[in-house]
Amino acid sequence: MRQLDTTSEGAATIETAPTRYVEGDGIRFAYRRLGPATGTPLVLLQHFSGNIDAWDPAVVNALAADRPVIAFDNAGVGRSTGRTPDNVAAMAKDAVAFIRLLGLPEVDLLGFSLGGCIAQQIATEHQRLVRKLILVGTAPKGGEEHLLAVLQEAFSQTDAPDPRLPLFFTKSAASRSSGLAFLKRAMVRKNDRDTDNGNAVTDPQAKALINWCATPDPGHVMLRAIRQPALVVSGSHDTMLPANNAYAMFKALSNAQLVLYPDSGHGALFQYPEIFVSHVRTFLESQPAAA
Amino acid sequence: MRQLDTTSEGAATIETAPTRYVEGDGIRFAYRRLGPATGTPLVLLQHFSGNIDAWDPAVVNALAADRPVIAFDNAGVGRSTGRTPDNVAAMAKDAVAFIRLLGLPEVDLLGFSLGGCIAQQIATEHQRLVRKLILVGTAPKGGEEHLLAVLQEAFSQTDAPDPRLPLFFTKSAASRSSGLAFLKRAMVRKNDRDTDNGNAVTDPQAKALINWCATPDPGHVMLRAIRQPALVVSGSHDTMLPANNAYAMFKALSNAQLVLYPDSGHGALFQYPEIFVSHVRTFLESQPAAA
Repeated sequence: MRQLDTTSEGAATIETAPTRYVEGDGIRFAYRRLGPATGTPLVLLQHFSGNIDAWDPAVVNALAADRPVIAFDNAGVGRSTGRTPDNVAAMAKDAVAFIRLLGLPEVDLLGFSLGGCIAQQIATEHQRLVRKLILVGTAPKGGEEHLLAVLQEAFSQTDAPDPRLPLFFTKSAASRSSGLAFLKRAMVRKNDRDTDNGNAVTDPQAKALINWCATPDPGHVMLRAIRQPALVVSGSHDTMLPANNAYAMFKALSNAQLVLYPDSGHGALFQYPEIFVSHVRTFLESQPAAA
Repeated sequence: MRQLDTTSEGAATIETAPTRYVEGDGIRFAYRRLGPATGTPLVLLQHFSGNIDAWDPAVVNALAADRPVIAFDNAGVGRSTGRTPDNVAAMAKDAVAFIRLLGLPEVDLLGFSLGGCIAQQIATEHQRLVRKLILVGTAPKGGEEHLLAVLQEAFSQTDAPDPRLPLFFTKSAASRSSGLAFLKRAMVRKNDRDTDNGNAVTDPQAKALINWCATPDPGHVMLRAIRQPALVVSGSHDTMLPANNAYAMFKALSNAQLVLYPDSGHGALFQYPEIFVSHVRTFLESQPAAA
């Protein structure tokens, strides 16, 4: 069953917008839609283990000031039904199914970490669906990842208020302080909060990310197939998917901007929300370079 | 003799502002001042062989919309008197003398190419004078340069309307078209135009840039001494001072943002003036990260 998304959510924020659902091909997707009713929607592709409420309100709400922004749970994640696949290609297929269910003919994609892998896959396969893409804290196929080691280290820090503090931020006082502020922002919503993910989600997601990086792509065939303008973003000290990935992606993509931030880890976009939003806006609003 | 610069030039552009002069220690410096009378001034440090009129009005005028911007000829260059030194350290000394003559207690620096080397030198030696620095198309001490080879190649293209077309832009249609638009903008000023530089300027400047890159700085001691926030910018296909320099600088600086642009050469800042100005503004207006 297909439900078209026709309601404007002009004033909503990620903390206040109702969670909505759209169903098709046996999957019921949970999502929230913010921002104006018109304009190219920016669809957010979430990181390993994250749900809709793991996005930073400071980022999402600011981006929604001048464009529709859609956060959703991919198949199996959060309150979406279906099964979380164990590979990026299938996740990309699910995400495209969701976008089609909303009746969106053209979107921008912002993919963070695992979501950035999915964004790359979608961009190569759907040239007309994807206008521009933003790849944050992610890796190319065959890229460098330290997921399990970093997770093990983070979960051994039993005094951390949230594993995302050591996972997403550096050990500096400034980064930690930004991390605590992010966690506070992300916990504001109490009612209708998204469901945390268990092993049925994180196990296949971890496998998908690890296999993505373990699959060599000599000469970056996938990145070279991406024709859309791209913005590649990373933190200087991302321990999970190091910034070298971002530099390699920038060099292989035909039309990419690269932005790297200082003293920051995997969650650089949440450490510098105002700066990141400004960079995203500048990128999305600029005319693509003539071919 | 010292002349304080007290006049507001709120409405002036780089094409219309009068060229002014300030003299001290035997050097008479030519400069133009744009933008509001108050705020931290942004002092521009020009590239090899360039004078005040080699800046892109689309960049300089937009930056001057919300801050004082000062373009000047360093010692010996354009209409400044004195002798062009053959090393970066002496050029930095001259530039600091100029800034002191204007009575400016604190400035931001935007150094392009050779000007970026001078900016690094000033930032290490004058922690309090320099608030933030922007390093565009430049190299660290001991970095990679191909100045003479690229100059030879550019000057062999006798059909080019200006050597800056092959020197600053790539061979793509989009980059060449941006290059022609830049050259047109930079030629608008007819009256009171700055003087072109001859060998008495370019020979020592070339020597200074080549020696800067030929002087090893193991472990990037100079960059590690820079405490100020920095924005490092490069074009993806800079043939003179390759983008690898920018990535290396980003990694060695303690507090730097890196921005790289697609399909662009040494003159990336003039190829994407609106995007570059937006990135500079975002950088200059953001709060420095807490130490």
